[in-house]
Amino acid sequence: MSDATPLAKGAAWMNGKIMPIAEARLPVNDWGILHSDITYDVVPVRDGAFFRLRDYMERFRASRASLRLDIGMDEAAISAALHQMVAASGLRDSYVAMVASRGVPLIPGTRDPRECGNHFYCWCVPYIYLMRPEMPPQARTAWIAKSVTRIPETSVDPRVKNYHWGDFTAGLFEAKDNGYETVILLDADGNVTEGPGFNVFAFSGNRLITPDAGALEGISRRTVIEMARSHGMDVEIRPLPLAEFMEADEVFLSTSGGGVMPLTRVDDRIFSNGGIGPVTTAMHETYWRWTQDPVYRTEIEYDAKPPA
Amino acid sequence: MSDATPLAKGAAWMNGKIMPIAEARLPVNDWGILHSDITYDVVPVRDGAFFRLRDYMERFRASRASLRLDIGMDEAAISAALHQMVAASGLRDSYVAMVASRGVPLIPGTRDPRECGNHFYCWCVPYIYLMRPEMPPQARTAWIAKSVTRIPETSVDPRVKNYHWGDFTAGLFEAKDNGYETVILLDADGNVTEGPGFNVFAFSGNRLITPDAGALEGISRRTVIEMARSHGMDVEIRPLPLAEFMEADEVFLSTSGGGVMPLTRVDDRIFSNGGIGPVTTAMHETYWRWTQDPVYRTEIEYDAKPPA
Repeated sequence: MSDATPLAKGAAWMNGKIMPIAEARLPVNDWGILHSDITYDVVPVRDGAFFRLRDYMERFRASRASLRLDIGMDEAAISAALHQMVAASGLRDSYVAMVASRGVPLIPGTRDPRECGNHFYCWCVPYIYLMRPEMPPQARTAWIAKSVTRIPETSVDPRVKNYHWGDFTAGLFEAKDNGYETVILLDADGNVTEGPGFNVFAFSGNRLITPDAGALEGISRRTVIEMARSHGMDVEIRPLPLAEFMEADEVFLSTSGGGVMPLTRVDDRIFSNGGIGPVTTAMHETYWRWTQDPVYRTEIEYDAKPPA
Repeated sequence: MSDATPLAKGAAWMNGKIMPIAEARLPVNDWGILHSDITYDVVPVRDGAFFRLRDYMERFRASRASLRLDIGMDEAAISAALHQMVAASGLRDSYVAMVASRGVPLIPGTRDPRECGNHFYCWCVPYIYLMRPEMPPQARTAWIAKSVTRIPETSVDPRVKNYHWGDFTAGLFEAKDNGYETVILLDADGNVTEGPGFNVFAFSGNRLITPDAGALEGISRRTVIEMARSHGMDVEIRPLPLAEFMEADEVFLSTSGGGVMPLTRVDDRIFSNGGIGPVTTAMHETYWRWTQDPVYRTEIEYDAKPPA
């Protein structure tokens, strides 16, 4: 992480202005807060380049369309805001969030979501790992939530990246109370879905399985699927019952906060004798190699002058 | 509405200071936004007094306990903040929101909800009606959502008042697209639950029925139940299948945004020949009479000097 600029702890872009993240604030009556009527995406920056920027931008566009949010900016303008902000921050490894919110009512007292001032903003901070690289293998644990199930697709579409994390937060407290690092949620049928900020994978034999429903279609998940196929694995995207998940050879998570994250323990089940399995290790290394591949990189021009 | 002070369009209390609502803002990386990890309550002010303040405060306390939010303020301090703010605004009829949020991480990069700076704030605006008093009976319509079901209790507890409104918002767009004013959501079994900002009631014969699950236990709902009993009705709190709801003599909503709100049409079903039924009218009038009852009123001292 660079601290060459006063924005190195975090920067934001709002209404065309770049500012320290601590100054970027939303009105308390923005429906992005009041109704969590908001969508976002997070693109990682590694070694001075966005990774798979076009893929994240395309999902963000689809999410806005699904929620009928019109932010009045085209893709080029969004991309320019992201570039200018990260360049101004000086951050060469960064967690970059782009957000579209319903905004505040344009007619006082209205309860109609069509009558609000939709808007865009973005912010970036030093790269956040789902689990820090220095975390020892035995600490990489997940708890299967017992008190909550994942919000079903029939209520909130998990493919539209959203801040409806009440189920995740309840699950996280349960995990922490039981001494686990993170949490995985099941659906009402007992199938594995996802966790707070990650997709879930099980590897058995030569088969890599990830849930087809109840979860975000993560860009990191897509990267894992592509890597697995390039490694000659059979990829199965389908319901993943908990019992099958617990019997896998290896299990891991995918996230834009660190790529491939091994799990060595889920509830009482210890995987790979408590170490990181060979497939997970290979996928982890491939992920980092791909972040260096020009095909996926959009370089940031840090010399570009930030706007006045 | 009074506009005797510059705060008359809305005021907020944050960190001990009272300010115009437009200046009250949350950091974009507050988990109240990022994870909708936040709870709130809304107490109405009518004719210069809070209505049932103790009941709203008690629910707000229970919601904070459920989410394990510690805002570092006791009930007296919260009540004082509410009083000072409304007094400073000069608003004698007001929508008053009290909010507790997870806050920003105290440790940069943490993903642990125990490591955030929980905080309280409140804000008030001129009284908001779910449906404005001048709205004609035939405009008081509700649509039964077809594309979404209510987030189930097994995922997010509806008794902890929350901003997880993705299902409501999707339903509202569906309602507006079909020319209806608001929306009612069903659960996965086809029972009536609630809508955006209100509970639902059906009256048939001498029986008043309201759902027992999948919905907030509204304070206005409680008022309706108490009023119904005082009118000698049989109150049944139990699952309310859609078919039974649609066959009721009268249906209405309860909300702190106007008390008892009649519905004259739900989908294709017209109630009371398109007028407002006698029971709904009686309940509506009783609600407004109760707001004048000293038993339920906590008077606001508007002459009190706001803090410097």
